[in-house]
Amino acid sequence: MAAAAAAVQAQADAVRRLKQEQAEPDEIAKEVAKLLEMKAQLGDEGKSKFVLKTPKGTRDYSPKQMAIRERVFNAIITCFKRHGAEVIDTPVFELKETLTGKYGEDSKLIYDLKDQGGELLSLRYDLTVPFARYLAMNKITNIKRYHIAKVYRRDNPAMTRGRYREFYQCDFDIAGHFDPMIPDAECLKIAHEILSELQLGDFLIKVNDRRILDGMFAVCGVPDSKFRTICSSVDKLDKMPWEDVRSEMLGEKGLSPEAANRIGEYVQLHGGLELIEQLLQDPKLSQNQLAKEGLGDMKLLFEYLTLFGITGKISFDLSLARGLDYYTGVIFEAVLVQQENNHEEEPVSVGSVAGGGRYDGLVGMFDPKGRRVPCVGVSIGIERIFSIMEQKVEASAEKIRTTETQVLVASAQKKLLEERLKLISELWDAGIKAEMLYKKNPKLLNQLQYCEDTGIPLVAIVGEQELKDGVVKLRVVATREEVDVRRESLVEEIKTRTSPS
Amino acid sequence: MAAAAAAVQAQADAVRRLKQEQAEPDEIAKEVAKLLEMKAQLGDEGKSKFVLKTPKGTRDYSPKQMAIRERVFNAIITCFKRHGAEVIDTPVFELKETLTGKYGEDSKLIYDLKDQGGELLSLRYDLTVPFARYLAMNKITNIKRYHIAKVYRRDNPAMTRGRYREFYQCDFDIAGHFDPMIPDAECLKIAHEILSELQLGDFLIKVNDRRILDGMFAVCGVPDSKFRTICSSVDKLDKMPWEDVRSEMLGEKGLSPEAANRIGEYVQLHGGLELIEQLLQDPKLSQNQLAKEGLGDMKLLFEYLTLFGITGKISFDLSLARGLDYYTGVIFEAVLVQQENNHEEEPVSVGSVAGGGRYDGLVGMFDPKGRRVPCVGVSIGIERIFSIMEQKVEASAEKIRTTETQVLVASAQKKLLEERLKLISELWDAGIKAEMLYKKNPKLLNQLQYCEDTGIPLVAIVGEQELKDGVVKLRVVATREEVDVRRESLVEEIKTRTSPS
Repeated sequence: MAAAAAAVQAQADAVRRLKQEQAEPDEIAKEVAKLLEMKAQLGDEGKSKFVLKTPKGTRDYSPKQMAIRERVFNAIITCFKRHGAEVIDTPVFELKETLTGKYGEDSKLIYDLKDQGGELLSLRYDLTVPFARYLAMNKITNIKRYHIAKVYRRDNPAMTRGRYREFYQCDFDIAGHFDPMIPDAECLKIAHEILSELQLGDFLIKVNDRRILDGMFAVCGVPDSKFRTICSSVDKLDKMPWEDVRSEMLGEKGLSPEAANRIGEYVQLHGGLELIEQLLQDPKLSQNQLAKEGLGDMKLLFEYLTLFGITGKISFDLSLARGLDYYTGVIFEAVLVQQENNHEEEPVSVGSVAGGGRYDGLVGMFDPKGRRVPCVGVSIGIERIFSIMEQKVEASAEKIRTTETQVLVASAQKKLLEERLKLISELWDAGIKAEMLYKKNPKLLNQLQYCEDTGIPLVAIVGEQELKDGVVKLRVVATREEVDVRRESLVEEIKTRTSPS
Repeated sequence: MAAAAAAVQAQADAVRRLKQEQAEPDEIAKEVAKLLEMKAQLGDEGKSKFVLKTPKGTRDYSPKQMAIRERVFNAIITCFKRHGAEVIDTPVFELKETLTGKYGEDSKLIYDLKDQGGELLSLRYDLTVPFARYLAMNKITNIKRYHIAKVYRRDNPAMTRGRYREFYQCDFDIAGHFDPMIPDAECLKIAHEILSELQLGDFLIKVNDRRILDGMFAVCGVPDSKFRTICSSVDKLDKMPWEDVRSEMLGEKGLSPEAANRIGEYVQLHGGLELIEQLLQDPKLSQNQLAKEGLGDMKLLFEYLTLFGITGKISFDLSLARGLDYYTGVIFEAVLVQQENNHEEEPVSVGSVAGGGRYDGLVGMFDPKGRRVPCVGVSIGIERIFSIMEQKVEASAEKIRTTETQVLVASAQKKLLEERLKLISELWDAGIKAEMLYKKNPKLLNQLQYCEDTGIPLVAIVGEQELKDGVVKLRVVATREEVDVRRESLVEEIKTRTSPS
């Protein structure tokens, strides 16, 4: 409305100006063109008052989408519980200052709430910072928990590729002082189990360590002050070729060509235990204390992963950097890979579906006395997985039921609403999942059609004769078989016929 | 920080003033007192930069609270599914204009997001308006769905009584053109089932109809323009005595004493079918078309509720009004009642735990062509129920497990980390819920203690001898019984011993 008022004002101003200045004809033509453009820009705003949509970057879930979503959640929750995790929940918003200084460059993507008096609030950006706040606030030094909830980022949405502004994260984290790499290995095992279970196709989990990266930067001659910003350039290697990343390092970031070239050699490396051994012998890297620590732990990690039998899908990759500031040790990211069978090229990555790492300093940032609680965690990115699952279901002929209804209570004649209400009430009270049409006198055909449409397997039909005989006619929708069942046996009969075989 | 700077400035000003004015000693004393008061008000703000808390009116859920919460959710979801509902989800925020004009006086409690460029957004206030928006947007004219999600109200929190600014609503709604009162009766049946199932103590479901209220206002001589505001006065009768509500009607709302007195007579009435019959004969009310319609439907509703066998806990109550603007027909509210056994007084209400009603106009407000989709729904208020359940668990000796772990993989000797990792990996891969301590060489006592603390029923102990013999020692924590189980039978043995009997 403000825009419309401004346009009207502009129009009036223009007319006045034209009159006052006794403008030249082409001046007039210009003004008219300007006004027409303005009118076009206003477009529908003037006409319809209201746009019927969800906010940018968000979506509703239909019942069918929810059915798929719940399958994915179930697989993930089952895995988290298998690993003995408790569950917590935190508010959707936090004090603004709780989020301040935790996300580096990404902080600009945080949604703030309007100042309506009282506290300044922001929507959570991830589940990790609220978890660290929760630990510090409750002085918890030892917990293994999962948390599945929506987080919010004012990012550029790409909804067809599963990138939203409101999206679920499924996080599993282990907090506490433990012996090295045992919890870290479990997080990777969990990512491996979930991605295998969901059958999304082939995947690869890239692993690195912030200490190895920092040591590498040091031996390559990157000044201390540029570690984080060069790290964020390296992080772009999954989307940009090395040449472009190198240009960014030299130009925007002001790194020397020699340092960049040395980094270029390291970040091409990926492999397994062998590569770790090789780098432990690397004349430069092995002299750096941080890198040595990181490589030592990486070796231990790969030994544990070997015991878990999952090294086949895990790659130690020096180009993996991860964007977030709070990581301090192991970092990892799982990507789905498309095998290009016709070529002998390397697998093509089609996007990250899980990630995580160690963040030993975050809880200490919240603790008044700075007490540290070491943490490591894995976060499953459900939206991309969900997109893939949805496409798979779409492609298959699978018909997804969106309810669990076992029986429809129906009638073949008129004036039996009361009898249907009595029967359905009995069934509900006995725990049977039952529906009826909300019509006084529905046609039998419509009732049967409803079962076909929604996948209800049984129909319990009441009629004059059945009422006299003390029975209910039970019809199996799939086979059209009909049997008279004594009313007192109906609940048992429905349970038997609908129990999973 | 702004407050601190202002105080410093004020202090400097005061000192300057004192110097300039060569003030009297009691002037000085006053200024000093003022400054001290200011300092006290500032309190800790000057010192610590950061407050470790959740936003006002919100809370975290600990694992123990989550365990209770999931029980409540399970009972509710089971009931919703028993009635054949699908499930949907919508974003946590909506376009601001989607919520505008739907909540009457309560609109001031809506949380707005900060204008960061782009759309103006608000956090959802309930699940009903997003549901109506969803129906209009997707042109759905027929659905039975549930939705369980958090909603947001900048209300005055009373957290000990279960009133929060972020809280769950569990909504079940039926949308579509159906024969009268059949879906309405089912919503009441659902409220009845859930409150019975949760065993929260005695409850009462009050029922009324907006049309009866409006008809009553008309025959009492309330001017049309005052219907909504007088309705919101009546809505306060559950918290205020009639005399106070009457004063509000006469003073603030400007109603005539005669009209108020007539209302006063009606709103005292509550009962069942008999009262409905009586009011259908009421010389004034029976002349009002709206009231007649409402009473006719109320009669039908009670006939259906009689078939469901639940009229014992349902009261037709003319004082029930409900705050929200969008109701158009039947309204209801469920309250828990404390039976004061020693007195012969009426049951005392301890608060609303569910509510709902019919809103036939809401979807039409969103539809570009104003097409109506009649709706009726019930909303379960989980927070108060959760508070009561929590107190009940607290009062009982029940020990709540927060994980489902079946077995702890332990070792009795040192240097068996690798063997533990191998065994636990086998168990995970076989679907067993298993944990281990994240120590290289944990003491057996600590491992057993962990099982006691967390309720893990079994311990699988690996030792040198067991490894040689190809067995694992399985210990039952409760009985301390120990048996050697062949490694290849371990999974089966654990499953058998932990399957629910």
